[in-house]
Amino acid sequence: MAESQTNSATELLLEAGVDLHLEVRGPKLGAGLTDALREAVRSGRLTPGARLPASRTLAADLGIARSTVTESYAELVAEGWLTAQQGSATRVAERATARRTTTAAQRVPVRRRTHGLLPGAADFAEFPRAQWLTASRRALSAAPPDAFGYGDPLGRMELRVALAEYLARVRSVYAEPERIIICAGFHHGLALTAQALIARGVRAVAVESYGLDLYRELLTHTGLGIPALSVDEHGARIDELNGLDGVGAVLLTPAHQFRTGVALSPERRAAALDWARITGGVVLEDDYDGEFRYDRKPVGALQGLDPEGVVYFGTASKSLAPALRVSWMVVPDSLLPDIAAAKGSVETVSVLEQLTLAEFIASGAFDRHVRSRRQSYRRRRDQLVKALAHSAPDIRVTGMTAGLQAVLELPAGTEAWVLQAASRQGLMVSGMAEFRHGGRDPHGPPRDALVVNYSAVSDSAWPSALKALCSVMP
Amino acid sequence: MAESQTNSATELLLEAGVDLHLEVRGPKLGAGLTDALREAVRSGRLTPGARLPASRTLAADLGIARSTVTESYAELVAEGWLTAQQGSATRVAERATARRTTTAAQRVPVRRRTHGLLPGAADFAEFPRAQWLTASRRALSAAPPDAFGYGDPLGRMELRVALAEYLARVRSVYAEPERIIICAGFHHGLALTAQALIARGVRAVAVESYGLDLYRELLTHTGLGIPALSVDEHGARIDELNGLDGVGAVLLTPAHQFRTGVALSPERRAAALDWARITGGVVLEDDYDGEFRYDRKPVGALQGLDPEGVVYFGTASKSLAPALRVSWMVVPDSLLPDIAAAKGSVETVSVLEQLTLAEFIASGAFDRHVRSRRQSYRRRRDQLVKALAHSAPDIRVTGMTAGLQAVLELPAGTEAWVLQAASRQGLMVSGMAEFRHGGRDPHGPPRDALVVNYSAVSDSAWPSALKALCSVMP
Repeated sequence: MAESQTNSATELLLEAGVDLHLEVRGPKLGAGLTDALREAVRSGRLTPGARLPASRTLAADLGIARSTVTESYAELVAEGWLTAQQGSATRVAERATARRTTTAAQRVPVRRRTHGLLPGAADFAEFPRAQWLTASRRALSAAPPDAFGYGDPLGRMELRVALAEYLARVRSVYAEPERIIICAGFHHGLALTAQALIARGVRAVAVESYGLDLYRELLTHTGLGIPALSVDEHGARIDELNGLDGVGAVLLTPAHQFRTGVALSPERRAAALDWARITGGVVLEDDYDGEFRYDRKPVGALQGLDPEGVVYFGTASKSLAPALRVSWMVVPDSLLPDIAAAKGSVETVSVLEQLTLAEFIASGAFDRHVRSRRQSYRRRRDQLVKALAHSAPDIRVTGMTAGLQAVLELPAGTEAWVLQAASRQGLMVSGMAEFRHGGRDPHGPPRDALVVNYSAVSDSAWPSALKALCSVMP
Repeated sequence: MAESQTNSATELLLEAGVDLHLEVRGPKLGAGLTDALREAVRSGRLTPGARLPASRTLAADLGIARSTVTESYAELVAEGWLTAQQGSATRVAERATARRTTTAAQRVPVRRRTHGLLPGAADFAEFPRAQWLTASRRALSAAPPDAFGYGDPLGRMELRVALAEYLARVRSVYAEPERIIICAGFHHGLALTAQALIARGVRAVAVESYGLDLYRELLTHTGLGIPALSVDEHGARIDELNGLDGVGAVLLTPAHQFRTGVALSPERRAAALDWARITGGVVLEDDYDGEFRYDRKPVGALQGLDPEGVVYFGTASKSLAPALRVSWMVVPDSLLPDIAAAKGSVETVSVLEQLTLAEFIASGAFDRHVRSRRQSYRRRRDQLVKALAHSAPDIRVTGMTAGLQAVLELPAGTEAWVLQAASRQGLMVSGMAEFRHGGRDPHGPPRDALVVNYSAVSDSAWPSALKALCSVMP
């Protein structure tokens, strides 16, 4: 399972909010990247003048060597697809325009974008604009003058109080407002925690063998090792922690394993807390979509069982919208000073937005919104299962008792093929390989599977996306 | 000018948004801190149960050794003023309640808070709530679905376009939207720039000898040296850059030197740009209050003269409110990739707030708000000058052709004495010593002066604050 299996994908965020999904696969990553970029220019998905990401950024996003990106850029500059000036960003060459407008390929982007079922996306058309504005109006009217100042760097107390009540009620989190820190997204909270762990002398954070590259990058960039725990049908293999040296924390997604979708079994939940108690380590509980569960019994957060052994992370990105850039963590007393020190003396999250979210939660609008989304997502999930049972009865669908996506288990060795077929249908889905630690599973053979985010499209686009999905199943 | 002159002050941001101004002075900093904290508890400014900052944070804010803070905390715990439990935050002891309610000192906080003229504060009651909500409603209604997603890490294009137009018109900034990066405050932008400079091999950033400790801290924490340039009546002494080794950037406040209030002279503006051109260095232009100028001819930003030699920083903190946590920088092409890489692939500033600010600027509401505030501040400044001319004709008032504060030059050696007198009147002002590099001016004797932020109080509180100020003048 060496380089020849390595696949990689990323969303390029370009100017004017244009995002471009770039998939690089095949035995030679450099050639794959060059082809993917050339095709993106040729088809018009990358428009003339558009700035490409810095080679460093793209390399990090794709999890490949920077030199590979530099060489791809250089080759495409030599070919005339891109332009580069000393010290300035690489851009799509202007002359590519003529080529674009004279080919039929220009219609491709429109078709591709109709069936986006990629993880991380959501049905943004459902953002509760009117209710949010109502909360904003109330919050702004009620705000005392000091609310317009620099703010408490740990977060506005109104929001921390509202979250404490909400998290205790919905996720069984033991959350005194004083333990809650408001952040600008999970990424931000994890960065602060990593700094605090380093300050404590921690050298490594164990991670699940399936997860997001972005977070693994963040941990290694901070200077932490990231040994991986295998993931099976009971979640992460907590017992593997015992063989690992210098590990002071473990990053887990207990409610809904990030990408395989399994819930951590009761035995392993207990084992994780035991490990923390015995070793003095800490569990980092990423409860990214804990609000969305369908037919299984709700499982509370690990944190409620041992608030001193767990840092709990939640976010408004899945339940409301990533655009808010608001998340929260609930921190053990013992880590609070170091995490607060890492956050520094300057607030980074808009105070007005914090007050609006506090009002949105306190008024019950948040609960109503989550309930309504949950019903809608459950309906889609049921439709997905039914449609697949009809058109592809051999495909096992897993990881869907909760969360916003399902995992479609594929016959071994077919993932890359199915992804190519999907791409030809303009269907944007992810393969499981993309989330594998280090680009591959360190423990055992890769699992061939599609990760289908059924919450990513609007209600009107869903039926045709589902139809396209069924049509590419082997 | 050794330790015996060292004064230090900070705003403690405590729970529930309570802020506490703490001034530590005298020959022994440890004793001064212990006294200041004990007095804050005794007077009720620090309430029972309130959490004190981590010793690390407070030490950084005050610019003193962490051990000094730890010893002060330990002493006050031994005395029973504070409580500390292993691994948990230091708090004000509950038993302090009885003491507080039985002394007359409890009335002090109310009186102290009426006359807050500290730098960094503003008249938050003037935040244009209704106009902001209108902009928010329009922005939310017009936002395309993709606006609710993760967003461009460099900032939402609508805001960057609106700022490009605004900055060109108002500050003569050469600002293509592609060069603008949205940040969560000047501190955030400076942190990203420091990282990019380090990546470039820069070892030191020259700073003005008067400025904010917080930013000096940030630079040294990133690993940069911070040699100081003297500040005289023409602004920073740019010629001193020539004697400094390994300096790849200089942090300047050309429009209104941060705290002395002088504008950088035309000769020195040219010299700064020449230095950048000749050495390949870069000027970091902190234009924190460039919108507020009164009777002098407007001076455009340095950046307009040489966009490739200057990183321009602006903020909504002074013109609107710090609570928004929105700022912007305009970046040379050559630094853009490194600064963008430092910002990473995840947006940190609320997209909805960015869209609201874009609408607020594009609709003209921002211009109207700034104009109205400018008139109000000019009126206050004139009243301040007139009142002082009457009651303290020997005091020279400087640094007030622009910005939100004035500098009251005091007879040599009287600053500490005047600050004590002010404190007894419940008047919160800052002394110039607080902003001196390393706690003291490395070039020549300290300048005794008060820094008076006349924008910090509401219209109704202003007359009595002014009266109190006049009464403490020597």
